[in-house]
Amino acid sequence: MRFTFITLFPEFIKQATEFSIIKRAIDSGRIEVAWVNPRDFTEDKHNTVDDTPFGGGAGMVLKVEPFYLAIQQAKKSMPNAKVIALCPGGTTFSQHKANELAHEYEEAIFLCGHYEGFDERIFCWVDEIISIGDYVLTGGELPALVVLDAVARLIPGVLGKLESTVEESFSDNLLEYAQYTRPVEFKGMIVPPVLREGNHSLIGKWRRKDALKKTLDSRPDLLRRVNLKKEDMALFHEIFDEAKGEKNV
Amino acid sequence: MRFTFITLFPEFIKQATEFSIIKRAIDSGRIEVAWVNPRDFTEDKHNTVDDTPFGGGAGMVLKVEPFYLAIQQAKKSMPNAKVIALCPGGTTFSQHKANELAHEYEEAIFLCGHYEGFDERIFCWVDEIISIGDYVLTGGELPALVVLDAVARLIPGVLGKLESTVEESFSDNLLEYAQYTRPVEFKGMIVPPVLREGNHSLIGKWRRKDALKKTLDSRPDLLRRVNLKKEDMALFHEIFDEAKGEKNV
Repeated sequence: MRFTFITLFPEFIKQATEFSIIKRAIDSGRIEVAWVNPRDFTEDKHNTVDDTPFGGGAGMVLKVEPFYLAIQQAKKSMPNAKVIALCPGGTTFSQHKANELAHEYEEAIFLCGHYEGFDERIFCWVDEIISIGDYVLTGGELPALVVLDAVARLIPGVLGKLESTVEESFSDNLLEYAQYTRPVEFKGMIVPPVLREGNHSLIGKWRRKDALKKTLDSRPDLLRRVNLKKEDMALFHEIFDEAKGEKNV
Repeated sequence: MRFTFITLFPEFIKQATEFSIIKRAIDSGRIEVAWVNPRDFTEDKHNTVDDTPFGGGAGMVLKVEPFYLAIQQAKKSMPNAKVIALCPGGTTFSQHKANELAHEYEEAIFLCGHYEGFDERIFCWVDEIISIGDYVLTGGELPALVVLDAVARLIPGVLGKLESTVEESFSDNLLEYAQYTRPVEFKGMIVPPVLREGNHSLIGKWRRKDALKKTLDSRPDLLRRVNLKKEDMALFHEIFDEAKGEKNV
């Protein structure tokens, strides 16, 4: 899959994609990353990309023309690319959306803003606005890298066998169960015996119960979307009984 | 405010904080950023930080000891730091949480995981688990940088007057109104006349109505949390009437 970042900080994107799994995905040709700087499409001597807002107020607004021209430049080599702007007012990014982008698109252009935001007219050339969460950042670069990372790791071959994507948070709307590795004992804390005894049916049950409990404790809102199995009801009973036991102590 | 990243990729954090507003905040002494690499606290010749999970399954688990020792190292120079782990199962990050961190804490340690996640026992030394959204990433570095960025820009003096934080998305649970800058006309699209006519009362009304309309269209869930004013009801009436008009065309 090919990604082009429209950004005033191309060096940041370049450096951020030189690490770990994203680097390996680029080196193996599974993803391609490029960038276009709107500053290269300005004609004044200061290469100005922003200006004061009509109607007054604090902050600056990113001019429509340099960003429009940068999108056109990016589209030359990827005419079918989906143009995605990263803005706090967009649709909230999710694992579902990451899957959609990874499996239904070949090319994406990330439009990264800065400071006060874009001139509204740029959105005529944008297919989708994505927000990575309900908070405000200084620019669109980190959100675009977050989307790149979430999408790239779902592309076949990007993750090795050791980094499998099968059992993890959100894949079935449950948070991930607790994991342990050696040593068995650390500062008096012992790995639960069931995980060390090799009974795979009991291990599976322990993990499902832990995932249900973690989701119930931290993110009960996710439970509405879980495909609960008949066995899960018995596990919930155990969880509630244990909670009652704890309260009585 | 001081931030220390516990990370296997300190070079990534170093480079990512050499740009734009974060760099300026560091240069002016308003924030400090440091890092500790858990790999420096391993004793085998391969500096191994992960191992296979007890109970089997794909993926690797980050060993508790090197991360525990890295936290202890970071705490030497900031004993009162809040230790924040970045994990998909944590509390969802929000503008409210960014404000809390910016105004109530002097020091934070970000614990960044990788691949399959931490040995559960590390959470005994963690004060809070934060998730930046309902999606899975290859590591905790990008989420930690997102939190750093959202928090740092709220620290007094970090943003200049031109990048004011007063009127923007989520500050009052409304999405931001549309902004425009020169030129007045671009590809046939004209800046709304009201914004060019200097009547500040009408501009204020136009902007409030646009913010209400954008929130209603894209994120109606936010409206529950908005402090609606009496005048907003009239604006909603106008928005609904206009929508009806559009449907009848």
